[in-house]
Amino acid sequence: MENSTGGKRPKVVIIGGGFGGLWAARTLANKPVDVVVIDRNNYHTFLALLYQVAAAELTAEDIAYPVRSVFCKIPNIDFILAHARRIDLQNRRIETDGETISYDYLILANGSVTSTFGVPGVGKHAYFLKTLEEAVALKNHIICCFESAAGEPDAERRKSLLTFVIVGGGATGVEYAGALTELIHGPLIKDYPGIDFSEARIILLEAAEQLVSSMPSNIRDYTARQLRGMGVDVRLKAAVAEVFPDRVGLKGAENIETNTVVWTAGVKGEGLAAASNIPVTRDGRVAVIETLQIQDQQNIYVIGDLASINEGQRILPMVAQVAIQSGVTSAQNILRQIARLAPQPFIYKDRGSMITIGRKAAGVAIGSRTFTGFFAWVMWLVIHLFNLIGFRNRVMVLINWAWDYLLYERAVRYVFPSGTPSEAQCSSCVRKPEKKNDYPGK
Amino acid sequence: MENSTGGKRPKVVIIGGGFGGLWAARTLANKPVDVVVIDRNNYHTFLALLYQVAAAELTAEDIAYPVRSVFCKIPNIDFILAHARRIDLQNRRIETDGETISYDYLILANGSVTSTFGVPGVGKHAYFLKTLEEAVALKNHIICCFESAAGEPDAERRKSLLTFVIVGGGATGVEYAGALTELIHGPLIKDYPGIDFSEARIILLEAAEQLVSSMPSNIRDYTARQLRGMGVDVRLKAAVAEVFPDRVGLKGAENIETNTVVWTAGVKGEGLAAASNIPVTRDGRVAVIETLQIQDQQNIYVIGDLASINEGQRILPMVAQVAIQSGVTSAQNILRQIARLAPQPFIYKDRGSMITIGRKAAGVAIGSRTFTGFFAWVMWLVIHLFNLIGFRNRVMVLINWAWDYLLYERAVRYVFPSGTPSEAQCSSCVRKPEKKNDYPGK
Repeated sequence: MENSTGGKRPKVVIIGGGFGGLWAARTLANKPVDVVVIDRNNYHTFLALLYQVAAAELTAEDIAYPVRSVFCKIPNIDFILAHARRIDLQNRRIETDGETISYDYLILANGSVTSTFGVPGVGKHAYFLKTLEEAVALKNHIICCFESAAGEPDAERRKSLLTFVIVGGGATGVEYAGALTELIHGPLIKDYPGIDFSEARIILLEAAEQLVSSMPSNIRDYTARQLRGMGVDVRLKAAVAEVFPDRVGLKGAENIETNTVVWTAGVKGEGLAAASNIPVTRDGRVAVIETLQIQDQQNIYVIGDLASINEGQRILPMVAQVAIQSGVTSAQNILRQIARLAPQPFIYKDRGSMITIGRKAAGVAIGSRTFTGFFAWVMWLVIHLFNLIGFRNRVMVLINWAWDYLLYERAVRYVFPSGTPSEAQCSSCVRKPEKKNDYPGK
Repeated sequence: MENSTGGKRPKVVIIGGGFGGLWAARTLANKPVDVVVIDRNNYHTFLALLYQVAAAELTAEDIAYPVRSVFCKIPNIDFILAHARRIDLQNRRIETDGETISYDYLILANGSVTSTFGVPGVGKHAYFLKTLEEAVALKNHIICCFESAAGEPDAERRKSLLTFVIVGGGATGVEYAGALTELIHGPLIKDYPGIDFSEARIILLEAAEQLVSSMPSNIRDYTARQLRGMGVDVRLKAAVAEVFPDRVGLKGAENIETNTVVWTAGVKGEGLAAASNIPVTRDGRVAVIETLQIQDQQNIYVIGDLASINEGQRILPMVAQVAIQSGVTSAQNILRQIARLAPQPFIYKDRGSMITIGRKAAGVAIGSRTFTGFFAWVMWLVIHLFNLIGFRNRVMVLINWAWDYLLYERAVRYVFPSGTPSEAQCSSCVRKPEKKNDYPGK
């Protein structure tokens, strides 16, 4: 380990092992700096496929990749598994739940977290879909709902168990609505012959007037049409007022009785910057200057979801391409600073965007061109497979997809971790009904 | 659902979805009975490969198979996800954490659980290796030990973090000692270039005079020789007196400083029978008569690990073959009872036993013949692959094994579930050292 004093090599600390942090570190590989990557997890998560973990399509391991594997052959990059608690700007060091780590240059790549927008009950009763743990917990809960419904004689309670409400018509909400529909009406129908699947409902609530509002209008329309064609109850201009354990309250509309609310309605910048008295915008992001530095801290860069990057008319969206490109630029700019050159402005190259709704249905926008349907879906498959880190992960995802798309099977429909933990996770739906009369005692 | 009165079909309840329970249910498929299988988990666990999950070689999903998938095409078999709490013998019903379930015939296939033999500190400080959750927690802990050691400047603490003590020289202890050695001296060496791996020690403690005492003597010798050749510190006649958070105390020998004690020294019958006032032996099993029935309850059968089955000189061991064969016999005997025929005695066909120590090293005993080395290892691979339930599981395990054995890579070295849960799991080793001086603040 180098320290930051004297004639030693400059030390660059990167907080976060997502796309932004990994690409920043790769750019610094074998350069005259010592790099330390800090993350709470010892794996990188491929967030674009997280909803498939929550839909029992992929295992958690399929979309995770050990961070140390990425860097173990690069001598100037070290990894520390720790939770950063506060940045001490004055002394240029990071306090973690373990050791304190000093830096000469800092790249903040903490990413984003779910935002409840202060809607009551969301934090307590809704499921999130932003981390691997949350995806697995949601999958376990969905299976538990069907297990409970299979033994539930009360029609009202059964209807509630089989009603799944997804809040937020962005990419995550749309993709999960599609994947959940295919899970329920494919493999689960086979597993639960005792359940009347006409009772199962998936409701997608979007407060705005349209789904995936960042997409071109023909893809927006295609998305809503496809989802409705699959039986998803898409409700636009539907704003959530409050979430309760057994229902969701809407503004100006009737409550929906449900044991499952999935909240994908918003994200905000991760809290470390704010906790360290770095000024943040209303959505918790850090406004950066065009070189990705913080105004008054020339040795601190912010990239990816956490960075509020102004590009003419708009703030750049929280997507993987922004994270990757800003990660590379931040690292290049640090190398320029070390070489006593001026950092250069970040220029974002928009590579297009895509969304998948279900089997053979996707929308792709590249420049002014758009594609929908089967061809777009194949593009989506290939691009996501290609962007997974790790050959093994690609093989495993490919196999699981083949299983799903060819055999209409979902591989991962276990309730695991289970036993006591899962009973806790499923407390709202693990069946604790009154004594029933279809199993009469004597 | 049928109830148990009147002219309806007899209802057979099977508690436990292990090998015994599954084979009993299969034997009752499409027969004139209604079958209900109850299990705490919605998946069957292939326990023979559990140690590979704890060694980051397989994922939990690889060795689990959804119970509903086994039975969803068989109309007379139903599954209930519930935890059986007590059997009400008088009223012939089972109280669970959910509904109460009546039975006409009952097959107890609850299996076995870890026994601490009352050794102090084992329950609190030692890791077990008997359930999927335990295997994953142990794997996470092992990785955490290396993460902690990588940043630990204190030599004593580092040595303790890198010392892994396995208690019990039976099959599980031996197989885990081998797999852990290969994990540490293969993939982990690559991941942690900063750690001196000569400090890593694996110690296998066995209270008796030899390992795998049920095996023929040449396999016993081969096993000890192989493990020692791999660098495992095999200590025979080493009995544990007490386990502490940071060390294990031995009877008549020095303490071993360690953060990791894996307890594979004993098992006992699962507690439901005892909780229901069914008489049990000293190791918690239920003594059955030769037809596998309980003496005074002609409609209750006990099979697998939970059954104490007398065969001439010996009690049958807790192995998969006993579970499978006793499961089949119990179901056949119930069908005989229903047909007003006398139940028949259970006759166990010993198919032999096997143990694997590591890459290309195994011992197989069939009748009076024994095999060791590469050929035995290939037999072991093929037989275990063949006995996995589910084609997908076989494919996935095959791929993970190929990865491991050909590329010397372990696929699954994530700490997951992580974040708060894993920090809790790893509380003994997550590094919370004093402020260190290799990262000096200014």
